[in-house]
Amino acid sequence: MKFCSDCGNKVSHKVPDGDNLARFICNECDTIHYQNPKVVAGAVIEHQGKILMCKRAIEPRYGYWTVPAGFMENKETVMQAAVRETYEEALAVVSKLDLYAVYNLPHVNQVYIMFHGKLDKPLFGSGAESLEVKLLGEQEIPWDDIAFRVVTMTLKRYFMDKKRGDFRAYTDDVII
Amino acid sequence: MKFCSDCGNKVSHKVPDGDNLARFICNECDTIHYQNPKVVAGAVIEHQGKILMCKRAIEPRYGYWTVPAGFMENKETVMQAAVRETYEEALAVVSKLDLYAVYNLPHVNQVYIMFHGKLDKPLFGSGAESLEVKLLGEQEIPWDDIAFRVVTMTLKRYFMDKKRGDFRAYTDDVII
Repeated sequence: MKFCSDCGNKVSHKVPDGDNLARFICNECDTIHYQNPKVVAGAVIEHQGKILMCKRAIEPRYGYWTVPAGFMENKETVMQAAVRETYEEALAVVSKLDLYAVYNLPHVNQVYIMFHGKLDKPLFGSGAESLEVKLLGEQEIPWDDIAFRVVTMTLKRYFMDKKRGDFRAYTDDVII
Repeated sequence: MKFCSDCGNKVSHKVPDGDNLARFICNECDTIHYQNPKVVAGAVIEHQGKILMCKRAIEPRYGYWTVPAGFMENKETVMQAAVRETYEEALAVVSKLDLYAVYNLPHVNQVYIMFHGKLDKPLFGSGAESLEVKLLGEQEIPWDDIAFRVVTMTLKRYFMDKKRGDFRAYTDDVII
C-alpha cells in the first residue's frame, strides 16, 4: 500500500497511538488502513465413498488437483461461500454441509474453513476454473499432484476420520 | 474506496472481465482491489465454572460486557489471536484452547471464530480496552448488557453444552 484509498495521498507505515503494530496511515487525512487475513472456504464433497476433486485451470498451481475452495466474499456466510465455490468449480450442487476444519496459513495470511458433505445428486462438471472434475477414491487421488498442502492435510484427515467414524471439527496450522 | 492504494489514481466500481461481482478497479493501473470479510477471534475462558468477562472501555458498545475477542492480525493464527486478545483485554494467560464455534455476521462482513479453554492461573485484570474484568457464573452474567449478540449466542450455547458435556465445534449465523 502506497496511497490512501480514501483521499489518494501518500501513506506511511508506522505504529498508531495506542496500538502496538505498524499500520498504513494516511499522511493527510490520518485514516488507518488495517490489513487482515482472508478466509478461504472449501468443501470435501463425498459421493459413494469418492471425493469431488478439480484439476485447476488457473494459476497458482495450474494443472494440480484440489477440492472446491476459494476466497469468501463480503455479504455471504462461510458455508454459502463453500457451496458457491463447489458450484463454480465443479458445477455440483450441495445443500447441506457440516463444519469440518479451520486451518491457519499465517505465511500467506489466510484462514481455510473447510466443510464436508455429500453431493445432492451425482451431477457435476468442469467449471470455468477447472480443467477436469472427477470423483476419486482414496487410492485414486493423485497424492503427488495436489495443489496445496492444506488440501492434502484435509483429505488425509478426512479418510482417517471416515475410518473411525468421527468427523468432529478441528483446527490445525499449515506452517511452511 | 475512492483511490487506488497502489498508484493513487481514482478507482471505479465495476465487474472485472471473467468475474461476476463488482470490485474497485483502478482507472489507470487496472489493479483490482478485492474486499473480503474479516476474522474476529474470541475465547470463552472458564475458571471453576465461571466465565472470564470484560466490560468494554471502548466503542462500539462502551460499558457493555463481552468475552475477550478482537480482529485477527496478519502473520498470526486464529488461536494466537484469541490468546492475544485474552491477554490484552483481561490480562489473563491461556495456553490451551479448543475450537468452539464459527459465526457468520454477513451484515458486517465478519466471521467470529470462538475457542474455549481454562485459565492457566486465576490471575486476570483490566486491560487497556476494559473498564472491569470479572469471573461470572451463568446466573451472574448481565445478560441484558452483553455487547454483541454473537457473544450472547456463544455463552448460551456454552452453558447448554456444559450441561450435556459435549463441546464439539459448530457453526451458526447471526442474522440481523
